[in-house]
Amino acid sequence: MNKVVLGIDLGGTGVKTALVSEDKVILAQETRPTQAEQGLDVVLGNMLDSAEAVIASSGIDRANILGAGIGAPGPSNWQEGIVYSPPNLPGWKDVPLAKLMADRLGFSCFIENDANAACYGEYWMGAGQDSTNMCVLTLGTGVGGGIVTHGKLLRGIDGTAGEIGHLKVLRDGRLCGCGAHGCLESYGSVTGLTWTAREGLEAGIQSTLTEACKGDLSTLTGKMVSDAAVAGDAFANEVLDETATWLGIGISSLINIFNPEKIVLCGGMIAAGERLFKPIRESAKARSFPVPAERVEIVAGALGNDSGVLGCAGVALERATGNS
Amino acid sequence: MNKVVLGIDLGGTGVKTALVSEDKVILAQETRPTQAEQGLDVVLGNMLDSAEAVIASSGIDRANILGAGIGAPGPSNWQEGIVYSPPNLPGWKDVPLAKLMADRLGFSCFIENDANAACYGEYWMGAGQDSTNMCVLTLGTGVGGGIVTHGKLLRGIDGTAGEIGHLKVLRDGRLCGCGAHGCLESYGSVTGLTWTAREGLEAGIQSTLTEACKGDLSTLTGKMVSDAAVAGDAFANEVLDETATWLGIGISSLINIFNPEKIVLCGGMIAAGERLFKPIRESAKARSFPVPAERVEIVAGALGNDSGVLGCAGVALERATGNS
Repeated sequence: MNKVVLGIDLGGTGVKTALVSEDKVILAQETRPTQAEQGLDVVLGNMLDSAEAVIASSGIDRANILGAGIGAPGPSNWQEGIVYSPPNLPGWKDVPLAKLMADRLGFSCFIENDANAACYGEYWMGAGQDSTNMCVLTLGTGVGGGIVTHGKLLRGIDGTAGEIGHLKVLRDGRLCGCGAHGCLESYGSVTGLTWTAREGLEAGIQSTLTEACKGDLSTLTGKMVSDAAVAGDAFANEVLDETATWLGIGISSLINIFNPEKIVLCGGMIAAGERLFKPIRESAKARSFPVPAERVEIVAGALGNDSGVLGCAGVALERATGNS
Repeated sequence: MNKVVLGIDLGGTGVKTALVSEDKVILAQETRPTQAEQGLDVVLGNMLDSAEAVIASSGIDRANILGAGIGAPGPSNWQEGIVYSPPNLPGWKDVPLAKLMADRLGFSCFIENDANAACYGEYWMGAGQDSTNMCVLTLGTGVGGGIVTHGKLLRGIDGTAGEIGHLKVLRDGRLCGCGAHGCLESYGSVTGLTWTAREGLEAGIQSTLTEACKGDLSTLTGKMVSDAAVAGDAFANEVLDETATWLGIGISSLINIFNPEKIVLCGGMIAAGERLFKPIRESAKARSFPVPAERVEIVAGALGNDSGVLGCAGVALERATGNS
């Protein structure tokens, strides 16, 4: 009998749970509301109910479950299984989540940062399968990151590794939320993209974007820029190219550092497809050494929103079998 | 009986050889001229003679030698043990160095890039001992790099990983020898330092450096800048601080990416000591996330010019025991 692992992706709005066999077959999965605003006990109850529901619906004998990986937002102690204080889970403070869940579920539980879990999902079951070294960039409000080296998740000594969004790409550049200047996130995220658009419009560039946001530049969104670009607006297209160029600069650093088989891009922004990937690839490869530039594939994630929950299951397998 | 490993650091001018026990005791070592200008056979002969000399002087039974690691300059195929065409070894082209040496020595030989070998030396026997994740920057004419993750040398799929000098730190910055703009190497190396000094002097800044180079800015050296700084020249001190700031920017990217225990700085430039380390640490830590910034130690290499040869021995141990 194949062993199975459970993944639980704890988000601010939804709990996603999946039971996956060690040979990568999804046996059961479901999603239910987190109800974060109702506090720790209700959230724990929802996680447990969700876990029991997928176990029951799979028909799997509980004895075959190797363990559960739980993806939590924000900083955590992955070795001890403690979640510090996730910004979107009010009332949580230094919660020993791995122990709380393991006591109730009756098998080992492991905590993982949600960005790392998403990376591991793409590595284990998605676009990064069969890689030994790969990087994942999640392009949304920020630029999330995850890294696999030697076939293992790169967590670092304190579990804070993989912050690709905080590669420096421009000395004394834009002030990033992390407190530093010139981080990739300030240029290559949706936030960075709208910032670039706003700067241009404030400088007087003519564009349909001014009309799209009804003259209030603070309401400008990534979708407005993307829609305007598709409709042929020249400046909106420049903004997309500029964002892709920045992402390529950061990715070229990753190519020179990791000589990876794959760079996997995930998150809302990849909906723009080749319109974004093509200039990202051009920018990245032109700035990298020829051999690793030739080698690396810069591709879209294959798992969409399931990368996190499947990665949680993969992390459980990695850690329960002592391979982390 | 402890097993032993041989390290051979093949440089353009000297061959350094050391026999080291698996518990890190140097049993014998020596250096002799490479005689690179006399071609492949003479160089091979010198490497073999050097190996036999240290084996003989150690009194070790040959049967206890696990293998040899050979550090070669320039690009190579580390899996197959082939050295392509090192710029400072005339006449070498796709040399199957591992096999040539193994056939003559009678034990396994492994090829390693010299920058990686130096990194592994500091990891195995130097300033990075007991780290799991660490980065080495060799600050000389360029900025060399080596990285250990999960306790293993990060080589990448083609063996080109670890090019820390080619992290991008400034979009559209100085044109680097690699063909890209704004690489750390163009700012943080001795070459970058003298470039910064020259730019200032060309812009008319008053400094004793103008006199030191007798008005010919093309003859400006790192030592002139360092000496002028020690003597109290304000601009020379600014140049040192500027160089340290750039290095800190690159290192902050490494801290956010790897959450390493150690960043080890090696190479000629570290002779400047705390005068350079202090502003590097300040620049790096101010730009990094608090937890990994607090954790990381930015220290000088402990092995000096022996990091390469000792790293070669360490690599032989890693690879002969299947741990690479």
